[in-house]
Amino acid sequence: MVKVSVLYPNSAGCKFDMNYYLTKHMPMVKQKVGAALKNMAVEQGVAGGAPGAPATYVAMGHLYFDSVDAFQAAFGPHAPAILGDIPNYTNIAPIIQISEVKMHE
Amino acid sequence: MVKVSVLYPNSAGCKFDMNYYLTKHMPMVKQKVGAALKNMAVEQGVAGGAPGAPATYVAMGHLYFDSVDAFQAAFGPHAPAILGDIPNYTNIAPIIQISEVKMHE
Repeated sequence: MVKVSVLYPNSAGCKFDMNYYLTKHMPMVKQKVGAALKNMAVEQGVAGGAPGAPATYVAMGHLYFDSVDAFQAAFGPHAPAILGDIPNYTNIAPIIQISEVKMHE
Repeated sequence: MVKVSVLYPNSAGCKFDMNYYLTKHMPMVKQKVGAALKNMAVEQGVAGGAPGAPATYVAMGHLYFDSVDAFQAAFGPHAPAILGDIPNYTNIAPIIQISEVKMHE
């Protein structure tokens, strides 16, 4: 299983509309990507590790696929529409990380 | 639900023993933290978003708790033992992020 994480770094002046992300953006991604998408998850940053430290990421979205090939085949054709929606909920340039799931329990 | 993510940044010369992490470290965390730990997950970085880009994180570990208080109460007493095990599998100083789970399906 492969996990595609979209990480939104915290910074002064950054904006992130979690309501839009949860109710419009992620459902749109799910609809466009279709059955190749096995799971999805969204988290909102609360804090860092040190007392009083801010979260490194204000938000994180995760998409799970069977393989990198399955992700690319399902996501690629819809990338312009999906990426084009980003300015509707944030002014942050996200970091993308593709990972292999080694443990999930 | 709260997710505590331990992110291991990729850098030149970094080392990470995934086998030790999966078979020794995370089981030890699970045993020490006990029933407060609702779920755990581990991922290994594969790639970044741009073609040929390396993963931002070589590994990520995630621990799920009912609340920040539940995490602190369960983890705090064992922090010295758990953090003291880090040099046994990596030379990376991890980033900690505490997040609120907004969507998980």
